[in-house]
Amino acid sequence: MKAAVFHGPNVGLKIEDLPTPRIGPGEILVHVAACGVCHTDLHYIEHGVSTFKKPPIVLGHEASGVVAECGPGVAQFKPGERVLIPAVLTCGHCAFCRSGRENICSEMKMLGNHFDGAYAEFVAVPAKDVLRLPASIPIEEAAIIADAISTPYHAVKNRARVQPGDTVVVFGCGGVGINAVQLAAAAGGTVIAVDLSDRKLEWARQFGAAHTINASQVERVSKEVRKLTGGGVDIALEVIGNPRTIEEAFECVRVGGRLVVVGYTHESISIVAGKIMFKEIEVLGSLGCRPVDYVPLIRMVEQGKIDLKRQVTHRFKLEELGKAFEVMKEGVSLRSIVVP
Amino acid sequence: MKAAVFHGPNVGLKIEDLPTPRIGPGEILVHVAACGVCHTDLHYIEHGVSTFKKPPIVLGHEASGVVAECGPGVAQFKPGERVLIPAVLTCGHCAFCRSGRENICSEMKMLGNHFDGAYAEFVAVPAKDVLRLPASIPIEEAAIIADAISTPYHAVKNRARVQPGDTVVVFGCGGVGINAVQLAAAAGGTVIAVDLSDRKLEWARQFGAAHTINASQVERVSKEVRKLTGGGVDIALEVIGNPRTIEEAFECVRVGGRLVVVGYTHESISIVAGKIMFKEIEVLGSLGCRPVDYVPLIRMVEQGKIDLKRQVTHRFKLEELGKAFEVMKEGVSLRSIVVP
Amino acid sequence: MKAAVFHGPNVGLKIEDLPTPRIGPGEILVHVAACGVCHTDLHYIEHGVSTFKKPPIVLGHEASGVVAECGPGVAQFKPGERVLIPAVLTCGHCAFCRSGRENICSEMKMLGNHFDGAYAEFVAVPAKDVLRLPASIPIEEAAIIADAISTPYHAVKNRARVQPGDTVVVFGCGGVGINAVQLAAAAGGTVIAVDLSDRKLEWARQFGAAHTINASQVERVSKEVRKLTGGGVDIALEVIGNPRTIEEAFECVRVGGRLVVVGYTHESISIVAGKIMFKEIEVLGSLGCRPVDYVPLIRMVEQGKIDLKRQVTHRFKLEELGKAFEVMKEGVSLRSIVVP
Amino acid sequence: MKAAVFHGPNVGLKIEDLPTPRIGPGEILVHVAACGVCHTDLHYIEHGVSTFKKPPIVLGHEASGVVAECGPGVAQFKPGERVLIPAVLTCGHCAFCRSGRENICSEMKMLGNHFDGAYAEFVAVPAKDVLRLPASIPIEEAAIIADAISTPYHAVKNRARVQPGDTVVVFGCGGVGINAVQLAAAAGGTVIAVDLSDRKLEWARQFGAAHTINASQVERVSKEVRKLTGGGVDIALEVIGNPRTIEEAFECVRVGGRLVVVGYTHESISIVAGKIMFKEIEVLGSLGCRPVDYVPLIRMVEQGKIDLKRQVTHRFKLEELGKAFEVMKEGVSLRSIVVP
Repeated sequence: MKAAVFHGPNVGLKIEDLPTPRIGPGEILVHVAACGVCHTDLHYIEHGVSTFKKPPIVLGHEASGVVAECGPGVAQFKPGERVLIPAVLTCGHCAFCRSGRENICSEMKMLGNHFDGAYAEFVAVPAKDVLRLPASIPIEEAAIIADAISTPYHAVKNRARVQPGDTVVVFGCGGVGINAVQLAAAAGGTVIAVDLSDRKLEWARQFGAAHTINASQVERVSKEVRKLTGGGVDIALEVIGNPRTIEEAFECVRVGGRLVVVGYTHESISIVAGKIMFKEIEVLGSLGCRPVDYVPLIRMVEQGKIDLKRQVTHRFKLEELGKAFEVMKEGVSLRSIVVP
Repeated sequence: MKAAVFHGPNVGLKIEDLPTPRIGPGEILVHVAACGVCHTDLHYIEHGVSTFKKPPIVLGHEASGVVAECGPGVAQFKPGERVLIPAVLTCGHCAFCRSGRENICSEMKMLGNHFDGAYAEFVAVPAKDVLRLPASIPIEEAAIIADAISTPYHAVKNRARVQPGDTVVVFGCGGVGINAVQLAAAAGGTVIAVDLSDRKLEWARQFGAAHTINASQVERVSKEVRKLTGGGVDIALEVIGNPRTIEEAFECVRVGGRLVVVGYTHESISIVAGKIMFKEIEVLGSLGCRPVDYVPLIRMVEQGKIDLKRQVTHRFKLEELGKAFEVMKEGVSLRSIVVP
Repeated sequence: MKAAVFHGPNVGLKIEDLPTPRIGPGEILVHVAACGVCHTDLHYIEHGVSTFKKPPIVLGHEASGVVAECGPGVAQFKPGERVLIPAVLTCGHCAFCRSGRENICSEMKMLGNHFDGAYAEFVAVPAKDVLRLPASIPIEEAAIIADAISTPYHAVKNRARVQPGDTVVVFGCGGVGINAVQLAAAAGGTVIAVDLSDRKLEWARQFGAAHTINASQVERVSKEVRKLTGGGVDIALEVIGNPRTIEEAFECVRVGGRLVVVGYTHESISIVAGKIMFKEIEVLGSLGCRPVDYVPLIRMVEQGKIDLKRQVTHRFKLEELGKAFEVMKEGVSLRSIVVP
Repeated sequence: MKAAVFHGPNVGLKIEDLPTPRIGPGEILVHVAACGVCHTDLHYIEHGVSTFKKPPIVLGHEASGVVAECGPGVAQFKPGERVLIPAVLTCGHCAFCRSGRENICSEMKMLGNHFDGAYAEFVAVPAKDVLRLPASIPIEEAAIIADAISTPYHAVKNRARVQPGDTVVVFGCGGVGINAVQLAAAAGGTVIAVDLSDRKLEWARQFGAAHTINASQVERVSKEVRKLTGGGVDIALEVIGNPRTIEEAFECVRVGGRLVVVGYTHESISIVAGKIMFKEIEVLGSLGCRPVDYVPLIRMVEQGKIDLKRQVTHRFKLEELGKAFEVMKEGVSLRSIVVP
């Protein structure tokens, strides 16, 4: 089968012909319909972040497809069923999995990071976490539910706990951020979207933002946000992973409000401790999404509460994967998918 | 001034000429713009429920208007400002008020029940709980925020705690129920609306219901709900106050789900205790709305997340109040307002 | 091996010699140290409640022991390790297990009910849910953690959510109820214990009750509770499963308070719906305990926050199991254990 | 009357003879029984922190006493009643007060900071927030409930939300910290106490700590804490206000755990943002205590769940206030009270 294999930071990705993966007990082989193209992949390819499985490894972690084959002990699926593969698979038996926090599983495995991913015609995955897709959801666009939509869903629902009428600021309106905007609005929030790109802010408005701020055109974003909200937002979501932006997001939060850190950075943030204490602010991390939360999320897509089609702005063949990264870096795409 | 005065169950309402109310310290006089017509009034007029203040009393508890005069010590308002009067006013110092549960204030006073209400040209109220209305909200239709919208807002947000992706069934699609439908949908829920009237179910669809069930046309509503949801809803809201309907709503709830009782009845419900225990179901009451919650609620109306105009189906002069009750009883109105 | 086999309601229990159970993949064989004697067993033997596995079946679901043998694929235990077996074992992959509500697992299996239990020298169980016991906890008394302590732990912590300073009334001070008293007090609550037996109320005081009420000596328990607390308790726990007692417990709850139903009954309760609504009371079921919650619970026993020794008032040989049920029915035991 | 008047950082405190304060509407005059001596006072006297009311000002914010006189409109108290004065008084009508977060009132006023305090024979305060003390609580020692106990009560109950079985580390075992230890233990937690003083750690053990760590005798406190708990605590409380200690407390928290910042510092902390995100850690501030929470807290003292007497290690006359600050700085007192 065709696959995009990562050979390490110096070599990059190569489209190669690999043997179709073999599946073991409890696994299924999925014929990939589409795989979303994510910034995380760029971290491996260009920024020196290591994959857990040493290269060569097939990248790609945001995938939908059709069951091609079921391994021994797999009773819940049949060949031909349309499925979504969560980006992160869980152990199911650690203390976190067993207490409703599967998304911070201590043995989590990420597709295209711990094991071969979905920039390929086929991918082998444990059946346990895989989800059935209803017929009404277009199978290719559905791929992006697996990360770009599920990550902010967890953040908005379980961490930010957005309630109808809340004011919410979202920093970053890329593939994940745009869905933080969309989901916070779908939860009844009044959303302020912040980005450096007017194009992305225009998208943010289309996906439900009530206000937008181009951070390059104001002195301090927090000052604008405080003006718009009369003292600060109930909830700030940072979906970039930039320490300075996280600090600015913190300054946007009202007394008694909440900052949720969704973007990853290995760098430090610097916050006046007395502000956390005196304003009783909450700073919360948010990581991935529990497999069990995909069920209501898929229902939201089915009900039209999440717009899937408009956010897949580009579509490439597997051989064109390089182009997908280019449009991402140019900032002209919202989300690209690769169709093998 | 003109006012609709209730003289007790045998006499009913009379339009009379009363002196304009005098205001004391901390009070404001409001020139009523409109007052919503609510089932609760019918309870006094036709069903023998007593008002707290003995008749004669001016009824009407769902009012908007313009500040006409401010009493001593009122600094937060000026004559000419557009305001909303919450249906229930609170003491501000009991244990409930002070712990964030002002809606169950032990000294609560209801407009048009404990003291003269707003079926009148003017009404005198304590300034403490009154809310400013933004210019973009039409002042007459705004009246219905004070009960028909605020009551389900509290129920959906604070008691049902609807989260994006939840399945929700709402029993009763009248003036309050329609907003339970609208708000549960605005919170990201997939809503099933239940009523006996096809007209109301059609309205429910317009206000966001994904599915509707005419209870007169199915054997058991709970059976239909279980079929639609694959085992029961996350949340059931009963907005009628009928013991049999509350029991049926209970049967709609999935294992681990939640029933919220919004409708009032003095009658008993009968529930198998072992189902509550073995399915870990929650049964929760919901009463009114905290004044503080009107702020985000008014923001939702301003943002267009709550549709106000379409639900005010009828408009009457004060002299025509009797007609308003007639259309309510005929079931042809969604919400009527009276414009003095 | 010796075992107490239940042959159906007409025959009762017989001590017999059975082959030692065989273990399959993922299972362990436990040499039983002790098994607690629970009212639930009486339901099978005397009150016609059916076991899920048809008799003959070995009863007994509250057991501790030593690992005798590990089946294929069991890596987490070694023979010789001291363990506790939760009364209820879970599937680990249903929606409830995966969302932190393993205790309402849709595929739960109960020891001595769905499969052969621990009134025996050996018992075979899936290793997944079994817990290691620290050396400082006496292994025989530890058995009662598996139900008599874990069930009220879940109720007090996750359902009643007792916080320091809360007032709590507990109805029923038997083997489970006494631990509801003990745990609510250990969570910082001021506990009122209610029972019909002065002996049990004396025990309740020893286990932390601040007040006791003998229900046979007062006109209305709720009246006494309201007097003691100035209007009702924050939290009521019913640990008997009697519909009339559940109703009385409901009447003890203050405005805005919480009733938790821990005792099982298939009968109906009758509650004025308007009280639930107008007082915003919560009625919540509580079932069993999540395996993951045994970890902090065992830590509490280790730290001396839960007194184990004093509540095991009687100890019998397996052959004397009949006597254990007799002392239970006489009401002279707090908890008996059987040592095979 | 005698009073300790603060004349600014250069002059310090002087015992002077002042006129007894006059009370206005809604106020009461309290004959001070005792006033606790708090580190906060040292900040004004020695560290250049400004009081809100410009000097001269009577300091002292942790007071109990007897009602001497009631102003107009005060119906809830009578002269002769024993009372506790919360350290911080609230406005009662801002959005925070009205949503159950009175402790972050936007108009809060602190005794001995915004207005004259209780290092005096008499103090005038608004009656609204004052609490009745039951006869069984010794009136002088009761003073320290007003800050040293109430502040950690709010932190432990409402912010840390300690549940029975949780592991908790407390950094700082002074007057406030010792009660964080005591209250976390009273909530069912297993507490690790950290301090630099062996004397304070010995006290911490007496007040319920299961483990103690002298931070000066280990390489990294977080390393020890991780060893003791097998990976980190459920909850860390920092009760000092030292940026380096807050950072170390953060390192003690397990994946999915919670850090509560109780100590105040105007300095910045530096935390790797990716740890907050990837471990889904919560960092929460905690400020003061709501007046309404004093009710259950006073009940805990009454029930003996909080030990009052043993923590008042020193007692001084008003004239000896200087000595009280000396023993505090020497670290030989747990809490001193001044009896005017």
